[in-house]
Amino acid sequence: MKILGIAGSLRKGSYNKGVLRAAAEGSAEDVQIELFDLAKIPLFNQDIEDPLPEPVKEFKQKVTEADAIYFATPEYNNSMSGVIKNAIDWGSRPMGDNSWDSKPVAVVSASPSRLGGIKAQLALRQAFVFLNMHDIKQPEVVIANAMELFDEQGNLKDEDTKKRIATQVEALVEFAKKLT
Amino acid sequence: MKILGIAGSLRKGSYNKGVLRAAAEGSAEDVQIELFDLAKIPLFNQDIEDPLPEPVKEFKQKVTEADAIYFATPEYNNSMSGVIKNAIDWGSRPMGDNSWDSKPVAVVSASPSRLGGIKAQLALRQAFVFLNMHDIKQPEVVIANAMELFDEQGNLKDEDTKKRIATQVEALVEFAKKLT
Amino acid sequence: MKILGIAGSLRKGSYNKGVLRAAAEGSAEDVQIELFDLAKIPLFNQDIEDPLPEPVKEFKQKVTEADAIYFATPEYNNSMSGVIKNAIDWGSRPMGDNSWDSKPVAVVSASPSRLGGIKAQLALRQAFVFLNMHDIKQPEVVIANAMELFDEQGNLKDEDTKKRIATQVEALVEFAKKLT
Amino acid sequence: MKILGIAGSLRKGSYNKGVLRAAAEGSAEDVQIELFDLAKIPLFNQDIEDPLPEPVKEFKQKVTEADAIYFATPEYNNSMSGVIKNAIDWGSRPMGDNSWDSKPVAVVSASPSRLGGIKAQLALRQAFVFLNMHDIKQPEVVIANAMELFDEQGNLKDEDTKKRIATQVEALVEFAKKLT
Repeated sequence: MKILGIAGSLRKGSYNKGVLRAAAEGSAEDVQIELFDLAKIPLFNQDIEDPLPEPVKEFKQKVTEADAIYFATPEYNNSMSGVIKNAIDWGSRPMGDNSWDSKPVAVVSASPSRLGGIKAQLALRQAFVFLNMHDIKQPEVVIANAMELFDEQGNLKDEDTKKRIATQVEALVEFAKKLT
Repeated sequence: MKILGIAGSLRKGSYNKGVLRAAAEGSAEDVQIELFDLAKIPLFNQDIEDPLPEPVKEFKQKVTEADAIYFATPEYNNSMSGVIKNAIDWGSRPMGDNSWDSKPVAVVSASPSRLGGIKAQLALRQAFVFLNMHDIKQPEVVIANAMELFDEQGNLKDEDTKKRIATQVEALVEFAKKLT
Repeated sequence: MKILGIAGSLRKGSYNKGVLRAAAEGSAEDVQIELFDLAKIPLFNQDIEDPLPEPVKEFKQKVTEADAIYFATPEYNNSMSGVIKNAIDWGSRPMGDNSWDSKPVAVVSASPSRLGGIKAQLALRQAFVFLNMHDIKQPEVVIANAMELFDEQGNLKDEDTKKRIATQVEALVEFAKKLT
Repeated sequence: MKILGIAGSLRKGSYNKGVLRAAAEGSAEDVQIELFDLAKIPLFNQDIEDPLPEPVKEFKQKVTEADAIYFATPEYNNSMSGVIKNAIDWGSRPMGDNSWDSKPVAVVSASPSRLGGIKAQLALRQAFVFLNMHDIKQPEVVIANAMELFDEQGNLKDEDTKKRIATQVEALVEFAKKLT
């Protein structure tokens, strides 16, 4: 089972990157979680999609090969980050080549705020309808007050949160197996 | 009255850029609609926000000087484009310097689809809550089947649609005057 | 395979009831679509949930027995109807007895408007996250301009729309089988 | 300045009713907040809207007379309550007689949950677009962990929360004055 982990922040010490590293470390032996860094994905522009830019090609290849997707998104301005939406847009292009199609998917968010990014999660799920992605609904993992749970390098320290993430990944794996 | 027009697509022949040009041409004499092209705005990354990249500084300056904002967004994957969300994210940063604060705003969308981008509009409005932007609600302008209404350069040909846009701009201007 | 069809309108000639009747008539032999009329479900009030009102008990029983749920919702004021949300609220109560849990589900909407109720569908899907319902994403069935497609008794006349509904029901059945 | 306060729960000890009572007590002398109980509003049914049921007539009258609206909604299943949506639906009917039109409005939510009903608030705001209601965006008041802040009769005890509510009402009053 190969899961592609995509964080919606480019910041080095990003909490959401930390979530994905924790997920990769805490997952079962037969589950491989690979992280993809969005730093090289350019802004989407339909005028430059033929041929696709190299980093986009690589990205789409990774998405296509994955059995499931794990999005870790920050919340900016009540929604997902522009960075993650931009990557989603590329992944669905060019028309007729939607790499996200039929993928099982889970969403997690980490945020310094008290509400933990839940509004970003809702915004992200809205895209799944068009993309035809099958999102697990429960458990919801909303990581609030992130400053207290991560160290300065963005590594997750909190054991309880690690368990919640591991439980969510297990649920995603179970769901993905059923859908195959 | 200065309105800043922001299109969520980078494509040269973008319908949404065409909407803004039509708005600029059709507006009253004392209303100035300036278009800002998002092509130079980089992907948001908190690690590079001090100092702000030059194009971002310029963008924030334009937003700050505007009396009102007019967003024209395409719909990608049931939501606004990553490109427009990315610009919104920059405009709200760094923390404590939200250039969007208290601005009156209107939203329009043009799309080749039958539903005209209405889901992108909803996604955009969700951000206004956090940004503290005051959006006019009516008239809603949802431009569906764009291929029939624009020429190949993305210029709006349809007279009825031009009128709908002009009416919306007028409503935005009225609303902005009240809020001053 | 037993599917429970729930329409969000109480009106006798409701288009959405007509959608469900068309679905029941057009479904495969081994698929049984039963319609539940929400007319007797009272407004939710936590003070009267112990014991549950009789119609609510019956409703929850039907939901529990169903292998999948098919919601047909009108769009009122940019969202699902209060009537359908009220039924959903009862179905999730009392705490710890969520009848919707783990059910496969599909959403359809019929509306006299040009946008066909798509915003009601999005609002409905937002509830599925909490309810832990597994919604199929595609095909999306958005029935716009309903006045031209239904007769005065709310019976669907349009053959193309009947096919779209049948295709969606098939997709729901396939999805439900996988999740069992 | 007359504000109509509408709580989305019928429960006697409702936290959201308590929020409105606290708002009424804490508001300035020239601001009158009247509470309307939705218990008598029937489920919406287009077949019974001519003539409107008496409680609906009274409700619409109150909405029409109000200078602003203050919604206090619980969160049920990731959205506003069916009860409040049902009242909104009646208020917008019959076609051509939308009592909510152009009203300034604020939203608050109280919930025993950790996220305080923020998703219900978002769902509610989505309706404002169609209804043409002008919602203030800030301050957002999300009252989480309500069990610790209210007594058993649903009276708000917490002084800090009272202040947040009073501040929001002031912002609504200021906004309403500008829009007149």
